[in-house]
Amino acid sequence: MTVHALEAARRLAPRFAARAAEHDRDGSFPVDDFADLREAGLFGLMVPRALGGLGATFAEYTAVATELARGNGATALVFNMHASVTGALGAVTEELAEALGVPDEALAARDRLLSAAAQGSWYSVAMSERGSGARLSQLTTAYEATDGGWHLKGSKTFCSGAGHADGYLVAARSAVDQSVVSQFLVAAGDGVTVEPTWDSLGMRATSSHDLHLDVSVPADRLLGGVEGLALVVAQLMPHWLVASYAAVYVGVARAAIDAAAEHLNARNLAGLPAVRARLGRADAATAAAQLVVAEAARRVDEAPGDEETNRWVWRAKLLAGTTAAEVAASVLEAAGTSATRRGHPLERLYRDARCGSLHPATSDVCADWLGIAALGGDPDRDGSAPRW
Amino acid sequence: MTVHALEAARRLAPRFAARAAEHDRDGSFPVDDFADLREAGLFGLMVPRALGGLGATFAEYTAVATELARGNGATALVFNMHASVTGALGAVTEELAEALGVPDEALAARDRLLSAAAQGSWYSVAMSERGSGARLSQLTTAYEATDGGWHLKGSKTFCSGAGHADGYLVAARSAVDQSVVSQFLVAAGDGVTVEPTWDSLGMRATSSHDLHLDVSVPADRLLGGVEGLALVVAQLMPHWLVASYAAVYVGVARAAIDAAAEHLNARNLAGLPAVRARLGRADAATAAAQLVVAEAARRVDEAPGDEETNRWVWRAKLLAGTTAAEVAASVLEAAGTSATRRGHPLERLYRDARCGSLHPATSDVCADWLGIAALGGDPDRDGSAPRW
Amino acid sequence: MTVHALEAARRLAPRFAARAAEHDRDGSFPVDDFADLREAGLFGLMVPRALGGLGATFAEYTAVATELARGNGATALVFNMHASVTGALGAVTEELAEALGVPDEALAARDRLLSAAAQGSWYSVAMSERGSGARLSQLTTAYEATDGGWHLKGSKTFCSGAGHADGYLVAARSAVDQSVVSQFLVAAGDGVTVEPTWDSLGMRATSSHDLHLDVSVPADRLLGGVEGLALVVAQLMPHWLVASYAAVYVGVARAAIDAAAEHLNARNLAGLPAVRARLGRADAATAAAQLVVAEAARRVDEAPGDEETNRWVWRAKLLAGTTAAEVAASVLEAAGTSATRRGHPLERLYRDARCGSLHPATSDVCADWLGIAALGGDPDRDGSAPRW
Amino acid sequence: MTVHALEAARRLAPRFAARAAEHDRDGSFPVDDFADLREAGLFGLMVPRALGGLGATFAEYTAVATELARGNGATALVFNMHASVTGALGAVTEELAEALGVPDEALAARDRLLSAAAQGSWYSVAMSERGSGARLSQLTTAYEATDGGWHLKGSKTFCSGAGHADGYLVAARSAVDQSVVSQFLVAAGDGVTVEPTWDSLGMRATSSHDLHLDVSVPADRLLGGVEGLALVVAQLMPHWLVASYAAVYVGVARAAIDAAAEHLNARNLAGLPAVRARLGRADAATAAAQLVVAEAARRVDEAPGDEETNRWVWRAKLLAGTTAAEVAASVLEAAGTSATRRGHPLERLYRDARCGSLHPATSDVCADWLGIAALGGDPDRDGSAPRW
Repeated sequence: MTVHALEAARRLAPRFAARAAEHDRDGSFPVDDFADLREAGLFGLMVPRALGGLGATFAEYTAVATELARGNGATALVFNMHASVTGALGAVTEELAEALGVPDEALAARDRLLSAAAQGSWYSVAMSERGSGARLSQLTTAYEATDGGWHLKGSKTFCSGAGHADGYLVAARSAVDQSVVSQFLVAAGDGVTVEPTWDSLGMRATSSHDLHLDVSVPADRLLGGVEGLALVVAQLMPHWLVASYAAVYVGVARAAIDAAAEHLNARNLAGLPAVRARLGRADAATAAAQLVVAEAARRVDEAPGDEETNRWVWRAKLLAGTTAAEVAASVLEAAGTSATRRGHPLERLYRDARCGSLHPATSDVCADWLGIAALGGDPDRDGSAPRW
Repeated sequence: MTVHALEAARRLAPRFAARAAEHDRDGSFPVDDFADLREAGLFGLMVPRALGGLGATFAEYTAVATELARGNGATALVFNMHASVTGALGAVTEELAEALGVPDEALAARDRLLSAAAQGSWYSVAMSERGSGARLSQLTTAYEATDGGWHLKGSKTFCSGAGHADGYLVAARSAVDQSVVSQFLVAAGDGVTVEPTWDSLGMRATSSHDLHLDVSVPADRLLGGVEGLALVVAQLMPHWLVASYAAVYVGVARAAIDAAAEHLNARNLAGLPAVRARLGRADAATAAAQLVVAEAARRVDEAPGDEETNRWVWRAKLLAGTTAAEVAASVLEAAGTSATRRGHPLERLYRDARCGSLHPATSDVCADWLGIAALGGDPDRDGSAPRW
Repeated sequence: MTVHALEAARRLAPRFAARAAEHDRDGSFPVDDFADLREAGLFGLMVPRALGGLGATFAEYTAVATELARGNGATALVFNMHASVTGALGAVTEELAEALGVPDEALAARDRLLSAAAQGSWYSVAMSERGSGARLSQLTTAYEATDGGWHLKGSKTFCSGAGHADGYLVAARSAVDQSVVSQFLVAAGDGVTVEPTWDSLGMRATSSHDLHLDVSVPADRLLGGVEGLALVVAQLMPHWLVASYAAVYVGVARAAIDAAAEHLNARNLAGLPAVRARLGRADAATAAAQLVVAEAARRVDEAPGDEETNRWVWRAKLLAGTTAAEVAASVLEAAGTSATRRGHPLERLYRDARCGSLHPATSDVCADWLGIAALGGDPDRDGSAPRW
Repeated sequence: MTVHALEAARRLAPRFAARAAEHDRDGSFPVDDFADLREAGLFGLMVPRALGGLGATFAEYTAVATELARGNGATALVFNMHASVTGALGAVTEELAEALGVPDEALAARDRLLSAAAQGSWYSVAMSERGSGARLSQLTTAYEATDGGWHLKGSKTFCSGAGHADGYLVAARSAVDQSVVSQFLVAAGDGVTVEPTWDSLGMRATSSHDLHLDVSVPADRLLGGVEGLALVVAQLMPHWLVASYAAVYVGVARAAIDAAAEHLNARNLAGLPAVRARLGRADAATAAAQLVVAEAARRVDEAPGDEETNRWVWRAKLLAGTTAAEVAASVLEAAGTSATRRGHPLERLYRDARCGSLHPATSDVCADWLGIAALGGDPDRDGSAPRW
C-alpha cells in the first residue's frame, strides 16, 4: 500500500499547502483537505484490507503523515487522530481479543466501524479534559448503563476536528465503579455539542475545540464489548497516544527548511555563510529525526508495547518535537524579517512547530523516561508522574 | 531624571500589559499607551532639560525601555523610534555641530523640534526601503531643492507608528548627487500616505506600515542644515541604529519569565524539576543580557561610537535578541499547551520575542562583527557586508 | 587598592601562563606562581588595611581572580581558597562578632592569622570529604577538647594546595555533640599528612589532594572562639563557598578566546565565516558572564547573604561554569586538530573549563535554585537537597 | 558476515575497554587490541570472500566500528584506517577498473594486498601533511619513477598506527607533473621512519605520528597501476575519507552514556531529575546519530558517491561528531567531579569525544555543504573551499 498511499499524500500536500494560510488565519477547519483525503481513500489507511482498507502498517502510516504535514501540519494532526482510532481498532488481533475477553459481537461492531472508515467516515478522539490533561486515571466524564446501551455525560477539551468528524472516541469513567475506564465510539449528532474554544498559537486549523457530551449510544459502541479496557489498550499501544504526533512534526520541520530555501533563493541570499550553516544544521537534524520516527514505527510494527519499542517511541516524540521547534526558529532567523509577515509559510510554520514538544508526553517527560531507562530503571515505576 | 522616568515606566507597564492582547490580536496601534506616555512626559525623555525635557542619558533610556517592554514590547519598540530621533538630535553637541559645519539656524530648528517633543509631539523613523533594508547606501527615496525648501519622493517600509506619529525622520538621496544622503524631519499630513502593510508574526501593534512620500517641507527640516550628514551621524551613533532595540527585548524576556511563573503557580506546577530548571536558566540568561545592555549603554554615554563601545553595542544586540527568543520558547514549553491559547501573554511573547534577532544588525551579523573584532580585525573593513 | 592589585595580577598572568603547560602536564604545584603572589603582596589582598593588607572588597577580589585565571586557572583556584579564608575572617565585623558571641581573644587570634597572611602566609580549605562532598551537615571529621586546645581526626578530600599551604581551614564535627560543626585553622606540619590523590581531567596544578588529620591545635585555632559557628558563617557568606569560583572561570573562558584568536591568526584562518561566528558568540557570552560575576560581587559587598544577592551569586556560578565549558569547546573546534596537541593552551583550557560547572553548587543545582526563586519559592525550603 | 564480525566486535570491546585507560595515559599503541583483531580475523573484514576475507559491506563495517569504539575509540579509529584501505581497494569492481584503465597486473597486485590483509597484515593511511591538511590538491610529498619501481620522498602527519602497521597507503605528487597525484602502498621498513609527534588531547592511543618517507617501492605498489587515480578515487569514495569516522564517534557517545549510568547508579544518584534529563537527552541524540550513520552506510553500499548518498555521509559526519562531544560533556557534568579523575572512563571519553568534529571534513564544513545542498546548490562548485 505504501506506494499508493504515499504517492497520494505527496500529491495532496501541495494542495494542502495552498490552503494552509487561509485556515491558519481564520482558524477554520480544512474541509477541502478532508474531502481530498476521503476521495484518495486515505480514511481507510489503517483499515485492514479484508474490511476494504489499505491495511497500512504503523511505519507506512508515519511516512504518510510526514508527507501530509509537509503540506499542512494541522491537517496531518487531525488525520492522526483518525489514524489512531482506526489503527488501534485494527490492531486488536484475535489472540488479543481472546486474551482481553472481547466477545464476538464486539469484534463485529469493530469491523463495522472500520468498514465505515474505509468507505469514508472519519473519527476523532475526545480524551483530554480540563484539569486532568490526557491522563486516563483522572477523567471525570462518566458513563452508565441504560436500557440497550450507555449514557455518557461530561466535557472534553482539545478534541481535534470537533464538529467535523463523523464520530469520536470517548474515554469515560464508570459511574458505578470509579476504577473502571472504558472507551466508546460516539457518533456526531444530538447530545454532542461543540464549544468553539480553540484559538491557538499554532496548529490553528485543527479545530481542537471543547466537546460537551450528554448522549446515549447503542450497546455496541462500547469498544471491546467489555468495560475497563481503556488503560489496557493504552499500555499496549502507547505509540498511538505518544508518538504518532512525531511523524507530523518531522514534516513540519522539513516544510520549514523547504520554505526557507525557496525564500532565500528568491532573494539571492543563498551565498551567505550564516544562512548556509543554519540550513545545513537544520537539514541534518531533521533527517535524523525522520529516521528515528521511522525506526520507532518499524519496531512498533514488530513488537508493539515492548520496552525497547517504547524507548524508540519516546525518542521519536522527543526529537521530533524539539527538532521542529529549533529548526523552524533557526531557518526563520535565516530568512529574516520579510518572512515574518502573516501569510508567509515560515511565519505559520514557526508557530506550528512550537506545539510538538507540548503534546503529551511532553519533551521533558520523554527525556525523563529515557533517562530512567538509560539508568536501568523502569519509567512506569520510577517516573515522577503516572504515565496515563 | 532616572527615578522619575523609571517610576513612570514601571507605573505604566501594567496598563500597557492589560491592553497588549487586544492590540496584538487586531494589529491596532496602542493609542492609549501613547497618550499615557505623553501624559507622563516621556516624549521629552531624551530632550535636554534646557529645552524642557528630562535630559536622560542613553543608559537611563535603556532602563526605561526595558520597563516599558515588560508591559508591551510593541509599544516600547515604537517609543524607541521616537527616542532615537530625539536622542540623536539632542546628542549633537556644539563642538560636533561646529565640526560638521552645522549652521546656527539649523541648531535653532533642531531645538524647536526637541521643544515640541517635550511638549508632546512624537516622531518616528522612515528609513528602510523594500529591497535595500536599512542600508543608507542603497536608498532610492530622492529629494531635491525647491523654492524655500525641499521636495521628497519615494516609499519607505517598516515605519513603526506610521499614521500615528507627528513627524517622521526620513533618509533620502539627493537627486542631484547620488552620493549624498540627508535626513529630514517630515511632518505628518498631506503628501505623507500610509499603506497598511504591517501584519506580522510578532510586535504586531507597532503599525510598522509602508509610508509613501511625495511631499514638500520647509528648508529648516533638513536636519543639520547641510546636506550629506546621514552617514556621518550613523557612524557616530550606531547605538541608536543597532542597539536601542536590545533594551526592549530584555523586557520581553523578563515578561515571559514572569508570565510563566504566574501561569505555573496558578496550576501548582512550580514543583516540577524540569519546570524549575527551565525558569532558572531563563532567569540567569535574562539577567545577563540586561547587564550587557546596561554596560553598552553606560559606554555609549561615556564614549559613543568608540571601537570598544561598539563591541558592547553588538554584544547587547546579539544577546538580547537570542536570549529573548530562547527564553520565551523555553518557558512556553514549561507552561504547556494551555499557555498557547491566543490572548495568553506567553502566546504573544513567544511571537514578539522571535523578532529581536531579526532587526538590523541581525544576530548573525553581530556575531560576525564580534568575531572579527576578537580576531583583531576591523568589522568596517573586514565584514562581509557594508555596515550601513 | 584595585589598581595596584589588579595591575599586579595583570603583570603576573603572562608569567603564570608561561608555566601553566608544565604544571598541567606533571600535575605539579605552581610553586613559582605562589612565590610571585607572595612577593606582589597578594596574600594580603583580603586582609584589612589595619592589619597590613590591601583591604580589597569582594568585587575587587573577583576582578583580580579573573586576571590571574587568564594566566593559569589552577593557580587562581588555589588562590581563591586563600582569599576565601582571609576574606571570610576579615568580613566578621565587630557587630557580627558581638551578635555571634565571639570573645575578644578570638578576634585577636583572628587578627594574628590575618596579619600573618599579609606578611606572606597562605591558607587553604579542607572542607569536603569523600561521600559527603562539601555538605557541612554530613561531615565525619571529628574534634574534641583537650588540655589547652583541640584534637582533630579525620580525612578530607579536594584540598587545593595540599602540602604547600601554611595552614588549612578545617571543618569538623564535635565528638560530644554531633549537631555542632566548627571550623579550625590548622597549621601545616606534624599530624597533617597529604595523600597525593589528585590526578584530574582539568585544573591539574591545584594539588587538590586528600588530607589526613590527626592533630592537636592550640585553643585559639577554633575560629570565632565558640563552637558551632560553621553553618552560620556558611549562611552569611555563601558567595565564598559558591561563587568565588565563578570569577576564575570567566578568566578561563577569556583565555580560551585569546588563545584561539592567536592560533587562528597565525594560520591565516581568521577570514573563515564559521570561525568568526564561533569567536563572536564566545566573546559575547564571556563578556556577559563577566558582568554577572561583577554584579554579584558588587551586591555581595553591599548586602552579603541577602536573598537578591544570593540569586546573583547563583547566576554568576551557573553562567561562569556553563560559559567557560561551551566557549572552550567551541573555540577549540574553530582552532582545529592542531590545537589539540598537549602543550597547546587550548588543549589545557578545554579540560580546565569543564570543571567549573562541577564545583559546588553545580550548574544544575544553581539552575534549580534560581528556578525556585523565579517561581516565588525559597531554595532553602523548597530545594531538592540541603544547601549546606 | 555481520553476525560473526559483529559478535567478535562485541566480544572484544570489553577487553579493549579494560586496556584503554593505560594506553590513554601513556599514549601507547594498543598492541594487544590489534593482536585480538588479527586473531578474530577482522583484518579481513573488508576483503572479498574470494580473497579469503569476510566481504563486509560498508554498512556492516560501520556496525562493527561502533562496537569496537564502545571498547576503545582510539583502537576503532586506527582500525578504520585499515578498513578504509582494504575497503577502497576491494570496492574497485572490474567495470570500474576497466573505466579507469587499470591493467590486469594491477588488479593482481591489489588482490595480493587484500589476501595479505585477510591473512593478518594491516595497513594505515599516510595522507595528511603539515600545512595542507588532508587536501590532496596541496600535497608536497613527491614520487618519481625508478628502474623497476618508484621512489617516494616527503613527510606525512597524523598517520594513525605509525610504526605498527605493516604498510601505509601514501598519497604523493608526481615530480614530473605536479597535477598528477597517485597512491602507493608502502611497506613498513627501511626508508619509512616514524617521528613520535602524537601527544594529543584525545584519541591518544592512535599513535598518529609523523612519518618520513625516503623509500623505493616495487612497480606494483602503485595502486591501480596507472598514475593520477588518487583524486578520482576520492571523488568516488568520499565515505571512506569523510564518514567512516562517524561510526567510531557514535560508539564513543554510547560508551559515555553507559559509563555515566554505571557511575551514577554506583553512587545512588539515578533519582536526581537533572541527571535523568541529561541521560535521557543524551540517549536520544546518540540513538539518532547511530541511525544516521547506518542510513549513510546503507546508501554508500547502494549508490556510492551519489549526490544523495554524499548528503547522508555529511549528515553522519556532522551529527556523530557534534553528538559525541555534547553527550560526553553533558553526562560528565551529570556524573560530577569524581568522574573527572584520570583513569575514569568518562574522563577519557570526554577528551576522545571532542575530536570527532575536528576530523576532516569538520562539522562546520559539513554544515556548509549541507546548507548549500539544501539551498539547491552544489558543494563542489559553491563551497568556500575545495573538497579535496
